[in-house]
Amino acid sequence: MTITTDTIRNGVDTGRMFATLDLIKAQPELAKFQFRATNRWIDGSHNRSSIKDFYAAGGEDTSRSEEFQLDAGEPAILLGTDTGPNPAEYLLHALAACLTTSIVYVAAARKVELTSVESTLTGEMDVRGALGVDDEPRNGFENITVSFRVTGDAAEEKLHEVVERARKRSAVYDMVTNGVPVAVEVTTD
Amino acid sequence: MTITTDTIRNGVDTGRMFATLDLIKAQPELAKFQFRATNRWIDGSHNRSSIKDFYAAGGEDTSRSEEFQLDAGEPAILLGTDTGPNPAEYLLHALAACLTTSIVYVAAARKVELTSVESTLTGEMDVRGALGVDDEPRNGFENITVSFRVTGDAAEEKLHEVVERARKRSAVYDMVTNGVPVAVEVTTD
Repeated sequence: MTITTDTIRNGVDTGRMFATLDLIKAQPELAKFQFRATNRWIDGSHNRSSIKDFYAAGGEDTSRSEEFQLDAGEPAILLGTDTGPNPAEYLLHALAACLTTSIVYVAAARKVELTSVESTLTGEMDVRGALGVDDEPRNGFENITVSFRVTGDAAEEKLHEVVERARKRSAVYDMVTNGVPVAVEVTTD
Repeated sequence: MTITTDTIRNGVDTGRMFATLDLIKAQPELAKFQFRATNRWIDGSHNRSSIKDFYAAGGEDTSRSEEFQLDAGEPAILLGTDTGPNPAEYLLHALAACLTTSIVYVAAARKVELTSVESTLTGEMDVRGALGVDDEPRNGFENITVSFRVTGDAAEEKLHEVVERARKRSAVYDMVTNGVPVAVEVTTD
């Protein structure tokens, strides 16, 4: 008799995944999460976010021992000194990362062993909007294209189904395509 | 006679800024930009984006000597090992960074010397959506709150005007609040 205890697929512990899903189905109030970032201007287009604490599953999550720091900047043509990717590039990364993780998790749940997931993202922008030169072009990207190459031990059709399901469940894809209400508060003292 | 050549304010070269705006007004075709990211899955929720090249002002911009690399991950409760901020946290950073740089640039253009710009962002998410447990909650944040503290050598009213103008011109604020069309292409070989 062999007892199989290895539930890891694509680096995802599917045993824990299904246990988490069952728990949230039984106690939906555990599904309320709050993520956070704090940001501080340094100089010119250079600013830095710190990311650590978040609320999850009924309480403050304290599992992270160290905070992440992210530096933003602009290239020379947008008056910066390349202290980091610019904010629009960070948005492309957020979208790529969310779709990719969604693909990996969906594949793990559906017993598909992936060998690679690669993507190239492009966003088209007419900077007259953000620079305030012209009111007609929007400030942000007019459109974004995501080109995935996904390989694994499943037929082409099944791999396409995995990507499609991931797209339908991705948190950042939802936000970037549908928008989110954003409240901005300001104090000056 | 004193010749003032120092046009730097808040770390922004306002002389170059106004020259750039004049150039784009005269030749709107120079305003077409394309930003890019490439992403590669590493393991589980760990994936990495590389960001370097972009198209700007009529040609490929080659001013960046090195690429930026950004690692994404998930905390333990979302089946990861904290290999980086998660994608939704990256989106909060993108929003914070864009609003902050917009505030700094608008203030520079309006002759306001800033002393500090700090912000805290929170995003509320019911993870039943993204986890596919329930179709009712959306996948992404239900709402985002951005709390700014801005100080500088201007009256409170003027600082509020700077933030309001920055909000109206921020590329990422536009994208996150209004959404962007995203095309997803997939190859599997």
